[in-house]
Amino acid sequence: MRRKTPKRLGIEQRRQRLLDLGKSVFSLFRYDDVSTDDIAKKARVSKGLLYHYFPSKRDYYLAVIRDAAQQLSQRTEPSANGAFADALRRSIEGFVDYVIEYAGLFRALVRGGIGSDPEVEAIVEAMREQSIERVLTRGGVESFSARSRLRLYGWIGFTEFVALKWLEQRDLGREELVEVILDGLEPILHTLHAVSPSKPTLLKGTR
Amino acid sequence: MRRKTPKRLGIEQRRQRLLDLGKSVFSLFRYDDVSTDDIAKKARVSKGLLYHYFPSKRDYYLAVIRDAAQQLSQRTEPSANGAFADALRRSIEGFVDYVIEYAGLFRALVRGGIGSDPEVEAIVEAMREQSIERVLTRGGVESFSARSRLRLYGWIGFTEFVALKWLEQRDLGREELVEVILDGLEPILHTLHAVSPSKPTLLKGTR
Repeated sequence: MRRKTPKRLGIEQRRQRLLDLGKSVFSLFRYDDVSTDDIAKKARVSKGLLYHYFPSKRDYYLAVIRDAAQQLSQRTEPSANGAFADALRRSIEGFVDYVIEYAGLFRALVRGGIGSDPEVEAIVEAMREQSIERVLTRGGVESFSARSRLRLYGWIGFTEFVALKWLEQRDLGREELVEVILDGLEPILHTLHAVSPSKPTLLKGTR
Repeated sequence: MRRKTPKRLGIEQRRQRLLDLGKSVFSLFRYDDVSTDDIAKKARVSKGLLYHYFPSKRDYYLAVIRDAAQQLSQRTEPSANGAFADALRRSIEGFVDYVIEYAGLFRALVRGGIGSDPEVEAIVEAMREQSIERVLTRGGVESFSARSRLRLYGWIGFTEFVALKWLEQRDLGREELVEVILDGLEPILHTLHAVSPSKPTLLKGTR
């Protein structure tokens, strides 16, 4: 039986509903332009209840950002099976689909909806570092130079920038955006391959 | 004869002094942590005079950011003479030197010291677009695809990200950072070269 009223939801479910609402709201509006009154009204809960879950607007925003980062992380987790190139492509596709679905939220996530807030930045930086680690781990790269790692971090910037610009312009297809992102990684993987000669075909699919 | 007291400076000079002070201040402190009282005190001017030049803290910050962007733009202007590759390398060196000298300000510029402020973003975006135009113009690239332009924009993100990470870690030399940034551009220039076959050696120096 489906519960219909928010009142009868469990604590975790209700919290998640508030987070999902936040993801929609911060996709559409800037942090400064949203009040806790707006949130409570949209969620059809009292302000007191909202504050019970999230002591301040900033806490709420941080929880929403954390939830969004976690969701993006799940969507882009490379499959453990199959060739690295295939897993990588599917991961990038997951990224692009997320960016399309949550355009405004993605923008807030990587360009800082709340400004240069150290906690928001820590969440986003952890997400970026995770992406790098995934490429290295899934690619079976065991040793790499500081320079290669820096280039991988640069590729994260490349990816965020092309995604944001693409959202504005939409003058290429989704598949082309995926290609652009993969193309950006390829030369870096080639240098990693030079360090890990046991993986000669990092970007080549199984068949 | 050098004028010693701020009182006797001309209007433009005094304004520039306030901007130079702002560049130092916002290199070290976050926007929210600086008050106009602090600025006036450091500049040894009255708050009234500060407000005479800049009606609000935000106006002051915007003027400082505009000045910083203009300065960075001057430092990275590619020389009109010599081979493209040489001009490009010197431009990147100018960028890296600026980043070293104004680390905190650069960070505020590209990561948004004031948050997702549309006016700050417009200044920074104009700077990014200018960099792309310079590469295309100086490289003699006349026609290019939407995809190539998107990749160039990605390279701007790549460059900003590696510069920021390098500032944190400093585990590579300045020259290596220049190489990483140039390496990031090279494959993109190769695709541009495919469109502009009259420029077969875009990245090759004269000698």
